[in-house]
Parts: sequence; structure tokens; C-alpha cells
Amino acid sequence: MPKPKTLHASPEAVEHAFYEAMEHADLDAFMLLWSDDEEIVCIPPNGPRIVGHHAIREVWGNILSRGPIHARPSQIQVVQGPMVSVHSLIAQIIVNDDEGQTIVVNLNVTNIFIKGPQGWRLILHHASNAPQEEIGTDRRSGYSPPPNILH
Amino acid sequence: MPKPKTLHASPEAVEHAFYEAMEHADLDAFMLLWSDDEEIVCIPPNGPRIVGHHAIREVWGNILSRGPIHARPSQIQVVQGPMVSVHSLIAQIIVNDDEGQTIVVNLNVTNIFIKGPQGWRLILHHASNAPQEEIGTDRRSGYSPPPNILH
Repeated sequence: MPKPKTLHASPEAVEHAFYEAMEHADLDAFMLLWSDDEEIVCIPPNGPRIVGHHAIREVWGNILSRGPIHARPSQIQVVQGPMVSVHSLIAQIIVNDDEGQTIVVNLNVTNIFIKGPQGWRLILHHASNAPQEEIGTDRRSGYSPPPNILH
Repeated sequence: MPKPKTLHASPEAVEHAFYEAMEHADLDAFMLLWSDDEEIVCIPPNGPRIVGHHAIREVWGNILSRGPIHARPSQIQVVQGPMVSVHSLIAQIIVNDDEGQTIVVNLNVTNIFIKGPQGWRLILHHASNAPQEEIGTDRRSGYSPPPNILH
């Protein structure tokens, strides 16, 4: 039987539940956080854009089948309107490298939430690789793509 | 003398002007498209998150000093509210590789616009590398970062 949807009272509650669902590799809980809108968008790091419930469920079923994802949201910046909330944050993903060492990988994340009859829900999640030392206004950043993706 | 700000009647007009400013490497025009909010956020591909007018101007001054950026916005998806508009798109960046060949690099882009007294303006731009063949629901995507960023 499908789980009932929780009515989330704030974007922060949805975001917390989002990372909790990753922590528990709980695909059903993860999917319940999304808006019913068919145009929901999810962009994993280096991945193609994924649109709609069916495709997001398929891709995340695959991702979470590999096990839990340990993520620490940090440096959250919020632009809050009455019906929409935009969160920009650094997600620190704790992973094991090839040699079994635990390392932290920084991702830049944009999460967008909208408020509907069922409370706050996610409509867009965009995650991408960030420099390993997040230093805010580092001038190394540029619009030119790195050489490794050109060939 | 600083240019007067244009009152943009739609998010689409701001987005068009955004890519026009890149096309002309026009930093002043580029900066005028952003909201006055000090919490504006810009994330270039692989770059650190940049917050605020001063930092964005500094980084983009550096980027645009290298010359124009030729970008073709495509596959634009819009979630539109009365005061906020969320655009997800694939930006095709036309660049020359090391051998002088013209190639197209796909970026996943999230642009967020808000409506204020001065019309629609940008509050967040998040761009990241997308696969070179954008295929929507490709299952290759994953949350695990690629090995090249782990070391």
C-alpha cells in the first residue's frame, strides 16, 4: 500500500526529509516529496536533466539501489516568497573512494519548493560538482568548460 | 554614466537579454538583469557558488574579458507563478577546442526570475555540465561523482 503523503509545513521540512530519504535509501519516501506537477525537474551531477515522476523514479531507483547517500546540507541560502521558496546550498556528500578512504565531495545544489494544497513540495533539484574547497568568490571559476569534457 | 535599467515585462525577455549580454560580452548589460537583492546567486559550471552583486560582477568581468560567449538556449521548461518564474533549459555553448574546431557543449541551466517594482529580474543562475547528447531520461546518470573529481 502506498504511504500517505505528509503535509509539510515548510520548505525546510521537505528539504530535511529529502536528505533523510537519501540517508535511508528510501525511494518511496523520496518520491513523495515531489510536487504532483508533471514538469518536475531533477538534475544529478553530470547527469542529463530528468523530467517527470516516472523518469525521476526510475533514475533514483537505480541510484538508491546502490545504497544510502550520506549528505550534509550546509551554507543554505533562501529566497522565500509566499508560494515559492528557492534554496541554494552546498551538499557535502560523504563517499568512499576506490581505496576505501572516506572523503567529502561538495555539490552545489539548487532546490525549489512550491506551496500547494498538500503543503510544500519540491519542483526542481539541480545538483552539480563544486570545488572541493568552497571559497565563495574564487576567481578560478569560468564559463569555459574544462578540457576533459570536450573530447 | 551607468546605463538605465530596462523594465523587462517577462522572464523570457530577461533570459533573452541575459544570453544577448553574453553574446556581446557586455558586462554592464549583464549585471543590470539581476535583482537588487544582495542574495543573488550564480553558479558557473564546476565553479564555486558566487553570491551578491560585487562578487558576480568580479567573476563575470573576468569571464567576459575573454570574449563573447555564444549560447543557444534550448528545451526550455517553465514553472510560472505570479511573482516567480523557474526556467530549466539546456544551453548549447559554441566553443573552439584546442585544435580550433568548433564544438557544442551542453549545459544544464536553472534560471530563476522574480517580479518586482522594476519588472522581472534574475535571482539565481545555476549552470553545470550536461552529457553531450542530451537524452532526457538516460539511466547513466547517478549521484556518485565521477572519479576525476575525487582526487
